[in-house]
Amino acid sequence: MTMAAASFVTHLEGAIDGAVLPARTLQTTHEGRPILVRYDLDGVKTALARSDLHDRPPTMWRYRELLPVEDESHIVTLGETMTPLLPCPRLGGRLGVERLFVKDESRLPTGSFKSRGMAMAVSMAHELGIKRVAAPTAGNAGGALAAYAARASMDCFIFMPDSTPMINRYEAALHGAKAFLVNGLITDCGRIVREGTEKMGWFDMSTLKEPYRIEGKKTMGLELAEQMNWRLPHAILYPTGGGTGLIGMWKAFTELAELGWLDEARRPRMYACQSTTCPPMVNAFEAGDRFAVAPENPHTAAAGLCVPSAVGDFLILDAVRESGGKAMAADEHRLEDWMRLACELEGIALCPESAFCVGVLERAVAEGEIRPDETVVIFNTAAAQKYAEVIEADLPRLDHAGGIDWAALA
Amino acid sequence: MTMAAASFVTHLEGAIDGAVLPARTLQTTHEGRPILVRYDLDGVKTALARSDLHDRPPTMWRYRELLPVEDESHIVTLGETMTPLLPCPRLGGRLGVERLFVKDESRLPTGSFKSRGMAMAVSMAHELGIKRVAAPTAGNAGGALAAYAARASMDCFIFMPDSTPMINRYEAALHGAKAFLVNGLITDCGRIVREGTEKMGWFDMSTLKEPYRIEGKKTMGLELAEQMNWRLPHAILYPTGGGTGLIGMWKAFTELAELGWLDEARRPRMYACQSTTCPPMVNAFEAGDRFAVAPENPHTAAAGLCVPSAVGDFLILDAVRESGGKAMAADEHRLEDWMRLACELEGIALCPESAFCVGVLERAVAEGEIRPDETVVIFNTAAAQKYAEVIEADLPRLDHAGGIDWAALA
Repeated sequence: MTMAAASFVTHLEGAIDGAVLPARTLQTTHEGRPILVRYDLDGVKTALARSDLHDRPPTMWRYRELLPVEDESHIVTLGETMTPLLPCPRLGGRLGVERLFVKDESRLPTGSFKSRGMAMAVSMAHELGIKRVAAPTAGNAGGALAAYAARASMDCFIFMPDSTPMINRYEAALHGAKAFLVNGLITDCGRIVREGTEKMGWFDMSTLKEPYRIEGKKTMGLELAEQMNWRLPHAILYPTGGGTGLIGMWKAFTELAELGWLDEARRPRMYACQSTTCPPMVNAFEAGDRFAVAPENPHTAAAGLCVPSAVGDFLILDAVRESGGKAMAADEHRLEDWMRLACELEGIALCPESAFCVGVLERAVAEGEIRPDETVVIFNTAAAQKYAEVIEADLPRLDHAGGIDWAALA
Repeated sequence: MTMAAASFVTHLEGAIDGAVLPARTLQTTHEGRPILVRYDLDGVKTALARSDLHDRPPTMWRYRELLPVEDESHIVTLGETMTPLLPCPRLGGRLGVERLFVKDESRLPTGSFKSRGMAMAVSMAHELGIKRVAAPTAGNAGGALAAYAARASMDCFIFMPDSTPMINRYEAALHGAKAFLVNGLITDCGRIVREGTEKMGWFDMSTLKEPYRIEGKKTMGLELAEQMNWRLPHAILYPTGGGTGLIGMWKAFTELAELGWLDEARRPRMYACQSTTCPPMVNAFEAGDRFAVAPENPHTAAAGLCVPSAVGDFLILDAVRESGGKAMAADEHRLEDWMRLACELEGIALCPESAFCVGVLERAVAEGEIRPDETVVIFNTAAAQKYAEVIEADLPRLDHAGGIDWAALA
């Protein structure tokens, strides 16, 4: 098994206007908006049959013909193994759907789906000669970037609002990144990174500010299709902050359809799930708008959903609408109920972001938006164990010397 | 692909005296010491060729003929995918070995290798009709047991010393276990569980107090052998608290040798790695003893290594000696240096327990115990992100409104 020493990338494309941009050269954004990677899918079809995947290692790199890396020796990897798709009959039963699955992305390096995007973005940065990367983050992206940058011997600069969860702050520093707390919002951190690209020679790894994190996240969709034997689910519920994963999955499904690899033409309805206290996509969806407006006083205990302004808003909203899905919010105040429900019924520790998908599913079933006989997939995007502030619990104390009150334990 | 509706288990065996005990019935310990599972390896050899594994899903259950579950419908799973074996050329170079690998067990459910053992123990408890489980823990075992018990709809009781790391306390409660903090040591917690087996009808899931956690941990060795193409490394460095993993791996290698699956007769030298501040195995190894004595004032920041009395001490020491390895300690005070070294050079966040393996490797190379041209594997047994107290970092703060001092950032 040898990897082709060339990719099937034909060009890059400005997502806002379809402008054709050259591949194999550094790109950031186009007209301030994301850039997409385009492939010679006819070439891929000739080079690769679906069944060829069977003999490849179970990592995201098995889809290499649909990925942008030119030379496999440039891949920067921490072992991005395929994540399990876990049947959840009890949680599904409670919520009113017969076939519910959780795709457990917490099982990637650094305990987060961010590693798919960063593995790809850092690999491409490495291929294109980048030595210093920087990003703003309020959650798991910083640890993931720091880990891959360390793996690639790059300098890494991370800027976080001082409200960032403690484990995210610690993991960025642990991996040797130059990590800073900023007395502001993620937008303030983003501004520092932008200024640093000129002043410090950093390459900006912000969400959707370079073309390749989408391609990494795309592998969530490719994996899901393969794991479901090329019959996609009826509905996907995805916690949506910056939305790279949702955009990436929709791109994956489109490419798979063009390749003729899907055994059913139907693609899933995509549900962008947010919190009631930070619902920019929900507001825009309901207003019929293609671009979102930052909500007033955005906040949520799910750090990854606290994204008031997403540079890829129109891509998220286009995908949701094209799929026949919706952007829906669930009640911030019930977050812990939903985490507990999944944990207690299935043993699966959903991260706070993904817990909102449980709330949205509950509502969608009640409203007839999702039917009981449909197959539904929730993405668990990170390990709940990384959210110390959310899962904090004051446990009852026992005095072992004082004798145990057994009746009280039962 | 269907699973045989019967296992190849022939009997259980008291590890201390070889007593033959019946399988398919509840067993705990024998003479207060661990019980091992024995298989009809000739039967396995007839039923399964090494090459048959290729077509099976990449989870620990691919080795089912060498595992004790009788009926596959009894398997309680959260998706125990094979963990990556990561080449670490830079860390190896720094430590003086050419071929160093980290097997990253942090990628299992709940972010810990404990899930291999608990997946198996809970599956067997489920098969044998158990409904209520309990365990003492000072680390990752509690969260893993709570998760699998929830997945199997069992009641779960967890008792932890009040010094247990915060994330471990939280995750047990999050999964719906009845979790308690005890003002004492893990031995005090163990005593409560033992009393509860009679008074409360709990099944005791303590380390090595039932026969099956070893069989789960055994899959670390089976996977490693398959991933290394049936040529085992020269040396394995394993952080050793209760030692179930070391015992399990050595059992795996013995079974693989009997099956004739190893392409080189050589089995690895096993290095049991401990902290200088809690080194019972090291003390016993150096004294030439088969049983260990609890050290005075045992403590270490690596919660999983704070096991002063291991019920499987003789099994650990037997395996280490039979393999030609050693029990070695590394300096408690350099723990953070070693974590940082692996993180910064390779992007791999070793848990504190596994960081001691880095220290031991450094010493072993310096002393000529491990040669530069040998293949060496370190097991990373959990996600460093779960150790908030150890990875805590006070990050520098930036005032974004005050203007950035760019020179100071560089």
